[in-house]
This record gives sequence, structure tokens and C-alpha cells, in this order.
Amino acid sequence: MRIKTLFLNCTLKKTPETSNTEALIKKAEAIFNSLGAQTEILRLADYHISLGIVPEKVDEKDEFPLIYNKIKEADILIVGSPIWFGNRSSLVQQLMERLDGSYTQANKDNGQYPLYNKVAGTIITGNEDGAHMVASQTLFNMMHLGCTIPPNSDCYWVGEAGPGESYIKEGGAKHLYTNKTCHFLVHNTFWYAQLLKQHPNPNNLNTLYEAAQKES
Amino acid sequence: MRIKTLFLNCTLKKTPETSNTEALIKKAEAIFNSLGAQTEILRLADYHISLGIVPEKVDEKDEFPLIYNKIKEADILIVGSPIWFGNRSSLVQQLMERLDGSYTQANKDNGQYPLYNKVAGTIITGNEDGAHMVASQTLFNMMHLGCTIPPNSDCYWVGEAGPGESYIKEGGAKHLYTNKTCHFLVHNTFWYAQLLKQHPNPNNLNTLYEAAQKES
Amino acid sequence: MRIKTLFLNCTLKKTPETSNTEALIKKAEAIFNSLGAQTEILRLADYHISLGIVPEKVDEKDEFPLIYNKIKEADILIVGSPIWFGNRSSLVQQLMERLDGSYTQANKDNGQYPLYNKVAGTIITGNEDGAHMVASQTLFNMMHLGCTIPPNSDCYWVGEAGPGESYIKEGGAKHLYTNKTCHFLVHNTFWYAQLLKQHPNPNNLNTLYEAAQKES
Amino acid sequence: MRIKTLFLNCTLKKTPETSNTEALIKKAEAIFNSLGAQTEILRLADYHISLGIVPEKVDEKDEFPLIYNKIKEADILIVGSPIWFGNRSSLVQQLMERLDGSYTQANKDNGQYPLYNKVAGTIITGNEDGAHMVASQTLFNMMHLGCTIPPNSDCYWVGEAGPGESYIKEGGAKHLYTNKTCHFLVHNTFWYAQLLKQHPNPNNLNTLYEAAQKES
Repeated sequence: MRIKTLFLNCTLKKTPETSNTEALIKKAEAIFNSLGAQTEILRLADYHISLGIVPEKVDEKDEFPLIYNKIKEADILIVGSPIWFGNRSSLVQQLMERLDGSYTQANKDNGQYPLYNKVAGTIITGNEDGAHMVASQTLFNMMHLGCTIPPNSDCYWVGEAGPGESYIKEGGAKHLYTNKTCHFLVHNTFWYAQLLKQHPNPNNLNTLYEAAQKES
Repeated sequence: MRIKTLFLNCTLKKTPETSNTEALIKKAEAIFNSLGAQTEILRLADYHISLGIVPEKVDEKDEFPLIYNKIKEADILIVGSPIWFGNRSSLVQQLMERLDGSYTQANKDNGQYPLYNKVAGTIITGNEDGAHMVASQTLFNMMHLGCTIPPNSDCYWVGEAGPGESYIKEGGAKHLYTNKTCHFLVHNTFWYAQLLKQHPNPNNLNTLYEAAQKES
Repeated sequence: MRIKTLFLNCTLKKTPETSNTEALIKKAEAIFNSLGAQTEILRLADYHISLGIVPEKVDEKDEFPLIYNKIKEADILIVGSPIWFGNRSSLVQQLMERLDGSYTQANKDNGQYPLYNKVAGTIITGNEDGAHMVASQTLFNMMHLGCTIPPNSDCYWVGEAGPGESYIKEGGAKHLYTNKTCHFLVHNTFWYAQLLKQHPNPNNLNTLYEAAQKES
Repeated sequence: MRIKTLFLNCTLKKTPETSNTEALIKKAEAIFNSLGAQTEILRLADYHISLGIVPEKVDEKDEFPLIYNKIKEADILIVGSPIWFGNRSSLVQQLMERLDGSYTQANKDNGQYPLYNKVAGTIITGNEDGAHMVASQTLFNMMHLGCTIPPNSDCYWVGEAGPGESYIKEGGAKHLYTNKTCHFLVHNTFWYAQLLKQHPNPNNLNTLYEAAQKES
């Protein structure tokens, strides 16, 4: 079965505005495609995402369920984010707020959250600083939701201290370290996704939960 | 082959002072033992760890190489930390500073860092607040060093806002959520450690590195 | 001249839904009023705030300029936030994204950013963990935008590890530490706001900027 | 009375090793001196600082009390830090751990912590990323301990993504943004230190504490 990678680009810019983060995402996409993975890039800014803490439709305008369905169908989830004030974009935070309620949709048979058996990574671009902050928070959240985090599953580009040009104008596409980590990100998430297809997380979570309750 | 778990307890207290973090670590240890894993708890405060950014001996008093050897022999690394001012203890940060130089010890045949094929998790206790901060930073660092981060591989206990009793005095041992996540942490890190024994990370990193260099 | 305090409540809930963060904000408001300060509580969720990185109107629906005007008129800015996944709400992040462009509106005579001479603090509520993370990031951003941060200008309530009741249901209103820090927050921000009314930040920033350019 | 500035350089390198952070600190020192401030640069790595959470001597070798005395005598505290793994150095964390106990030394007459009436700032250098993280955590801690945080009281230099040269070799001394923020840091902390000499924090904290206790 083909591995499906979903890029959740949390740029603040709607299509067709140029997104620096998407320029780096496309590098990763090409490598995924060369490995035989199916890919889709989705910009959250193109959808109306209502404020809320559950993945289900919260009001009439809300389009988050469309995004959530794509998330559930993917094997690899790559969260893309620009950096603002050293932090991830408000859309990354909104993504996590909406996914928070996915905990309650745990599989009845084995207690696993809906994002178990998925692999997560992150791609970040910013003018100058904040990539570690954004990556650590974002991968931690995805891990909490059930994803597996392979080694070196972050890829980022940042320039020097202070305001400056962004990834595209600064020629980030030729940045050796960023390109190297882009390869690591893709190959590592791809390998773990294949591994989990063959060896899915075992069915022992629910039992554990009961065990913990008895013990307390 | 038996799975070896090493708990790196970064409490500021030397043995035999009572460590709250160790009390929770021991809960996890018992579960690991019940699964057949070999375990060792090590307190960094019991060693003289010199300031530095390489794992090798940096001066005459330095005992970090002893710790580094144990790290390299383990399959599962669980970093234990108390919370001070919302952050991980200075010993966790020192551990990361010393492991920073391990990047340069990448396997010559496949380019992988020494901590590839190891699985990481974290156990945290604090009076009141900071567990997400400590866990996200610590797991992110371990992932960067080469470890795999399974889903739900953090376990923590914190009390209410403000100064208060710690894990042991507050009766944290009966805390349902902490106990549940302790089970998740152990079972999930154990399952991934077994999986990686059978299916180690493939030998394609060095090649990728060269590919990235050519492309740039 | 009366001191004006603006509470920017970044709860995800629209009026009239019950906001736990607002319950704690109202405690602070009562103390501010007892000191003679004028107060206003504003929920960002009640406005349509378009994605963007400037405070000016970015599209037809955008109501952020109304909020920005209130921010410019206030002496004290208290950012209120719930905690989701250990982080501040997406609306706090959006507030910062929109204020980012305020840097370019520096006073032509003295080079100061629009938020100079204002005092900032923060009020946070969450089920269990993340207050230090939210407070440190938020106060740091406000400081960068030009605000002064008095000692002990954060006030928060969090419960024990794991899902649980929120501030109101858990009886947070009687929490000694939270109440003490609420007093500190109000008295300290109020005293600094008065001090800055009498002794505003001096007019030497622009000069310094030129000096730095020459030196470089 | 002359303003005293104490630079707490938390580099991992002992004197006389070259510290990049100290190179930037010296830029700030020269500006402080030009304003008439008295300055001292202290490297924590030159002292034996025992593990602990109180400022008092914790064992025979412990030299932290010497540092604590200098801290209490200073008007301005500038914490200098390199960045390792996106975080502040272990010595910054150790500084905070030792200062944690200063809360209990609150002034009996007015309840204020020992660091009230002091002004704090931070100077950071790193190869590539993490300045916002280090600055936000460090200034937040100092604010909690009693310090006032002026606007724009952080100054940092970081290079591009990935390993690279440090501040000195990369020619950071000519970096416009870093130089500009160095001026802001010095002038702003200096102005607030003078202001607090003339208008010290009022004596109403202890009273507030009692008020909070009654109300609860």
C-alpha cells in the first residue's frame, strides 16, 4: 500500500500568495515522491476554521472536519509553520486546539487515540530565530496525540538575528544544513511509516488503562 | 536479547537523599521489570560532571564518560527531571550539553549518530507547573540526538498552582492520570525498543548526506 | 489622569459563554477598580480577526483595528489566556502576529514603538500545566513591543496533572497563591503605570539607532 | 549614587578561555561605562557552584554566596548565556535554582523579595537558533524573583540555521540589529535603574499578602 503524506502548511497566507514555508515543503514533497509516497499539501489558511477544542464541526461555517478527515487518512503528517515572535503560527496552535478533542475518540477495542500508527515531522521557516521552540512544541503535541516521532524529523531554515529576507529571497534553497535535514526528515518519517504499516502499535492500551485504575 | 532501560535521574539531590522524581521512576521501573526488561537508575548528581560540550573526558575530575558508556549500552533512555522555575533541572541541560558532541561520533559506515536505534521517554515531577515545557524540550533534544520518540512517552506529576507539597508527600503515587501515563510510557517505549531490535534503522544516512551536498 | 486597564481575554469562547479565564480576570478588575483605575474586558473571540501581521485592517471583515485602538489608549495591558496543550491560545498568538507590524509605526521624533510607556501583565487559567510557558512567552512578546514588565506581573491558576475541572468548578476563587499573585499583579502594574505617567520613557531611542548604524 | 551593573556571564568556559557571549557583553559594558555606570563581569564557570535551591552556602566547596552578595549589591543584572540545543546554558538554570530560595528572604517590613528594585536584561549568543527561548525564560524568571523588565531589554546574536561560526569569528560585532538592540538594552535598563533609585517600589506587598489570606 502506498504511503500517504499530508503536509499541513500553517502559513498565514492564503493560496495563491507565495509561502516561504511551502517552498521548503515542496523540496520535501519531491523527495517523498521519489520514494513512491503519495503527497498532498494543504494550507489551513484556505479554510474557515472555527475556534474550538473538538475536531467535529462546531458551527455552520466550520470546515475543520474536512481537514480532520485528511489527517485520519494520512500515514505521515508534516506540520509546516512560519515563525512569528519566536513562536509557531496561530494556525498551528488552532490545529492543536481542534485536535485536542480527538483524545475522546479513542478506539473502543484497544483504547488508542486516532493518531496512533501515524508518523509526524515538522518543517519550519523564519527570518531569524525560534525553530527549536516551534519544532519542540509541535512534535511534542503530535506525539501526545498518538504519533511516532522518528529521529531527526524536523527541518528548518532561519536567517541571522534580526529582521531580514525570508527563505526564498535569501536563497535558502541552497542551504546545505537545511537540505540535509530535509532528506533526514523525509527518509526517516517514510521508513517509520512503512515499519508501522507492517507492525502496527499493538492492542494493549485499554487494558493498561484498566490496570492503572485498579492499581491506584 | 533483553531490553536494557537506563533511567537518567537529573534530580539535584545526591544518593541517599529522597528524590521525588525517583519515586515515580521506581513505579516505571517495576513495570519495565514485569515486562522482562533489565533496568538501572542513575543519578547524575552522584557523579562529577564537568562543564563541556563533548561526551569525552574534559578534565581530570570528569566522570561523564562513565555515564556516556551506560547511555550507549542502553536500548531505552528515560530522562527524569524535577521542575525548577518551570524548567528542567540544570543537570538535564548539562546532560544535553555533554551529548552535543556525540553528533561528531556518527557511524562512519552509515552516518548515524550514536543514539540512533535507541528509544527515549521522560519522567517529570514538580510542585505545580512546567511539565509540558520540560518534556517537550527534553524529548526534542533526544530525538535530535537520534532517539525514536514513541507516542505518549512522557509521564509527569504536578500539583496545583503555587508552592506546595511534592509528589511523595502529596500522595502522587495514587494519582490516576500519572499512573496511566506511566503505563503508556513503559509499554510504548518497550514495544518500540523491541521493534528496533528486530528492524534497526537502515544504513542510508551517509548516502543522503552526500546527496544533499551534491544538490546544494 | 485615571489609569486605564485593558484586559485582552484570549479565551476561545464568545460572549456570553462562561470563560474561566474571565472569572479570574474579574477578580483582578475588582482590585483595579478599588485603586481607582478604569477597566475594560475585551474578548478577542467576539471580533473577526483576520490572519495577518500588521495592526491595520487587512480585509473587509477584519475588526482588529478596533482592538488596536483600544490597546493604544490603554495604560495597562493584561493578556488573559487559557492553556491548550501547554501553550497559550491561538488568539494570543494571533494578537502578537497582528501587533508585529506595530514596530514599523515607531514615533518619528523618538523612534519608540507604539507600546512604549505601557505596562503589561498576564492572567492564565488551565486545567493542569503550562502557565510558566504561556506567561514567559507572552510577557516577553509584550516587552519586545515596548511594554514595561513589573515584578510579579503574572497571575495564574492550574490544577493537578491530567484532565480535571477548570478554575470555576474547582473552586479556584479560593486558591491562596492565585489570589496573592492577583494582588501583586494589580498593585505592581498599577504602580508602574502611575510612575510612567509621571516619568515617561525619555526621547532617545531614535538617536541611539543612528549611533548604532554609524558604529557598525 | 552610581548605578552598578553586574553581568552574570553563564558561558561554559572558564577564564581566560575566549567567550563569544563575553565579546558581546563587553560592547554593552562600554556603553554602560559611557553613561557613568560602574560595571563588573563575572563568569559563573570560574566558581564552584554546588547543586541546590537556596542562595546560602550548601556545602564546604560552595562559592555561590560570593555571587549572591554581588547580585544583592547590583542595580542592574544582565544574564549572559550561550545557546545549547536551543536552550540556555546549564549555568543559567543553576543560577535560577540557587536564587529560588531567595523568595524566603523577603523583607520583613514590606514582604518584598531581595531582587525587588533591581532591573534585569539579557545578552545571548548562539550559532543559529534559540535566542527567543533563552531570553523569554530568563527574563521571566528574573521578573518572578522581583526584577523589573524594561522594554527591549534583550540583546542577541545568532547566525543562520545549522552549525556555523560563532559571534566573534562570524564578525557579529558589525551586526547592525545586534548593535542596535545592545544600545536599547543598556539605555533602557540604565534609565529604569535610575528611576527606581528615585522612586523605589512602595512598601505594600506584605499588607497585600495578608489581605489575600483574609479574602480566601
